[in-house]
Amino acid sequence: MAKLSGFPEFLPAGRNAELILLDHLRRVFELYGFASIETRAAEPLDELLRKGEIDKEVYVLRRLQADAGASDSGMGLHYDLTVPFARYVLENAGKLEFPFRRYQIQKVWRGERPQEGRFREFTQADIDIVAKDELPFHFDVEVARVMAEALSGLPVPALRMQVNNRKLLEGFYLGLGIAETASVMRIVDKLDKLPGDKVVELLQSDAGLDLEQAQKCLALAEVSAPDASFVDRVRALGVSHELLDTGLAELAEVVEAASGIDGVEIVADLRIARGLDYYTGTVFETQMAGYEHLGSVCSGGRYDQLASDGKNTYPGVGISLGVSRILVPLINKGFEADRSVPSAVLVALIDEETRADSNAVAQQLRARGIPTEVAATAQKFGKQIRYAERRGIPYVWFPATAETPNQVKDIRSGDQADARPEDWAPPAEDLHPRIKEQHQ
Amino acid sequence: MAKLSGFPEFLPAGRNAELILLDHLRRVFELYGFASIETRAAEPLDELLRKGEIDKEVYVLRRLQADAGASDSGMGLHYDLTVPFARYVLENAGKLEFPFRRYQIQKVWRGERPQEGRFREFTQADIDIVAKDELPFHFDVEVARVMAEALSGLPVPALRMQVNNRKLLEGFYLGLGIAETASVMRIVDKLDKLPGDKVVELLQSDAGLDLEQAQKCLALAEVSAPDASFVDRVRALGVSHELLDTGLAELAEVVEAASGIDGVEIVADLRIARGLDYYTGTVFETQMAGYEHLGSVCSGGRYDQLASDGKNTYPGVGISLGVSRILVPLINKGFEADRSVPSAVLVALIDEETRADSNAVAQQLRARGIPTEVAATAQKFGKQIRYAERRGIPYVWFPATAETPNQVKDIRSGDQADARPEDWAPPAEDLHPRIKEQHQ
Repeated sequence: MAKLSGFPEFLPAGRNAELILLDHLRRVFELYGFASIETRAAEPLDELLRKGEIDKEVYVLRRLQADAGASDSGMGLHYDLTVPFARYVLENAGKLEFPFRRYQIQKVWRGERPQEGRFREFTQADIDIVAKDELPFHFDVEVARVMAEALSGLPVPALRMQVNNRKLLEGFYLGLGIAETASVMRIVDKLDKLPGDKVVELLQSDAGLDLEQAQKCLALAEVSAPDASFVDRVRALGVSHELLDTGLAELAEVVEAASGIDGVEIVADLRIARGLDYYTGTVFETQMAGYEHLGSVCSGGRYDQLASDGKNTYPGVGISLGVSRILVPLINKGFEADRSVPSAVLVALIDEETRADSNAVAQQLRARGIPTEVAATAQKFGKQIRYAERRGIPYVWFPATAETPNQVKDIRSGDQADARPEDWAPPAEDLHPRIKEQHQ
Repeated sequence: MAKLSGFPEFLPAGRNAELILLDHLRRVFELYGFASIETRAAEPLDELLRKGEIDKEVYVLRRLQADAGASDSGMGLHYDLTVPFARYVLENAGKLEFPFRRYQIQKVWRGERPQEGRFREFTQADIDIVAKDELPFHFDVEVARVMAEALSGLPVPALRMQVNNRKLLEGFYLGLGIAETASVMRIVDKLDKLPGDKVVELLQSDAGLDLEQAQKCLALAEVSAPDASFVDRVRALGVSHELLDTGLAELAEVVEAASGIDGVEIVADLRIARGLDYYTGTVFETQMAGYEHLGSVCSGGRYDQLASDGKNTYPGVGISLGVSRILVPLINKGFEADRSVPSAVLVALIDEETRADSNAVAQQLRARGIPTEVAATAQKFGKQIRYAERRGIPYVWFPATAETPNQVKDIRSGDQADARPEDWAPPAEDLHPRIKEQHQ
């Protein structure tokens, strides 16, 4: 049977690896007081299409029993978690406590052509903090710190989080005497695909800059640093503007707060602008070492107008982690858990007549939190051990008989010892599945 | 903004209650060695429509950019987790270890008219055990036991699990000399809506039974017992058949293995047949006390032909718990967690200049697994305490100053004491959200 392209599914050992990732993310988010929410999969199409640029990617829903020729249900599957979250905040504004910190780990759908790291169904993990009317800047710092900590504990290749600030860019351009800053940002954003001199050309031909302005814009985009040293390099370009000062101070604070965490490199990278127009300050992108071709795996920023109901506005700052974008390419390379089951112990079966004895041992282990299964059939013990081996279950328990006491065998080392079901426990690291040493 | 009918969403305190339920289910399923899998939300329409009876309820997907008049994508959203699971087993048969125990907790979608306990989007939690070619009966017993344990720990009204066995019914009818057993089962299944004498009438007029046969069928359906005593009552009806013997023995074993668990009543109820044709032995239904009008909240059974690829068949036994069916009506009545956030502690803020000190305290608590947030603004302490109160956060931490040591206040009792961020911890029961005492 052919797999459905763009709809990744995992075998149990891969799913166990995903669960380890998701549990870690949830743990970090909750340690920082982020509340879980889930929104429905479907939103009214007019909500989904407010950002015109991605309308082609929406899956529209139609009830099968609707008459032929009848219109669609007017609903589509959400393609991100930001649009539904903005709707949820407006819908429940009277019942939520602001500032509202939430995390949301859900599937999203896009009807685009599948390719490596791009799927039609995928999982995102978003954190956002939203306030009513005013959101102090320290929340930008918090969101960066929380996501950096979450990323740092992931058992995946090294991550590099690039941070920039729209106020910094905007202030720099204004300080250069450029009025049309948006078109400059759009052109500079092409530095991924175009060489610098081509960008300088475009800035002159399409945005009306003179050569010096264009070269300074390029020079700014080339600044990057793992700490606040970028500030002096920007100052050296000789541009000044109040908004530039604010942007420099904000960016320095974010970079310093989120740095020094194992496994995640934080850099101020002044080339990052993010395509979406709604960002107004801090912006984030993240690359995974060896997988730079996937694009950013974790992106976001500050948006001062996430949602508005006419009376109040709800500014926010958030980051979205592409769980599937990170995980699927890794799993395709053999990244998985060391077990295909949660079980730490297989209780062997002497014969069908004594199944109740094996069940009783299993119940005693489970009562103390040890995931345990009982052998399916009373085959020879060698076959039962291989049953455990094929699933990655580390321990096989042999129930007591008239002649022998209860014994437990570590099937990796072959060590076998007497044990009592009322007090034996595996070492903590064997209790639950772990990520397997990676195949390379 | 109007809520979308049939697509329930929870406020954070309700979602925390759902998480408590889902975490409990997962814990029990994993203790018994059930592996987690997730399948994609969309299946090819021909897979979904193999069971003709529910074709009206499927949501079909169409890509918005498909040309007007272009056909649908040929995919629809899954309406249960059994059809996708059968497809997953066939697709991965060569890579799975059988017998394969899996649990699956996911959203499903049905385009039907919303009403209490019936939704267009809802969450199910399924457990199944599937084997290749042959699945020993003891797995029926295991599945009943696991789900009964999972249900027993749920903080919800009392649950009553009704068990029956298709072999028992089939054998009884055959022993009465009835050849067309399927039509008898269909008519007896109407006992929920029709009185007994009307069913006896229908059995004669529509299924061609004589009066005595019809009355015995009714008498069988009226048997129910919380233990194996039902066996003698069936025997007393004077019918005998080999298949009846097997069914009686199987049902007695399931009822005895799953009974004696707190909060879940197990009964052999010989009226239960389950509408679906694919069940071949054990069948389950479950009612929630005070919510019988919702219908069964947890159903399933044994199916000897869940999936087949021509070469092998994959018999299975499983139960599906309607998480949303249980939870949404309860939450509408005020069932929720005691907090809208995961935080156990709010660290107060003396002024913005000392935010780093408050952050440092929070980091020390988080490093020891205590969910902690820092106050959003340096309001008066009374306002910061109310900030915690509104979110249900039980403890407020006051950072040390030059004059005062670190102190922590239980805002429920008002008790305040000196504490050190490196070793203070809340009582275990305050660490995470709990279900609130219920409003009635």
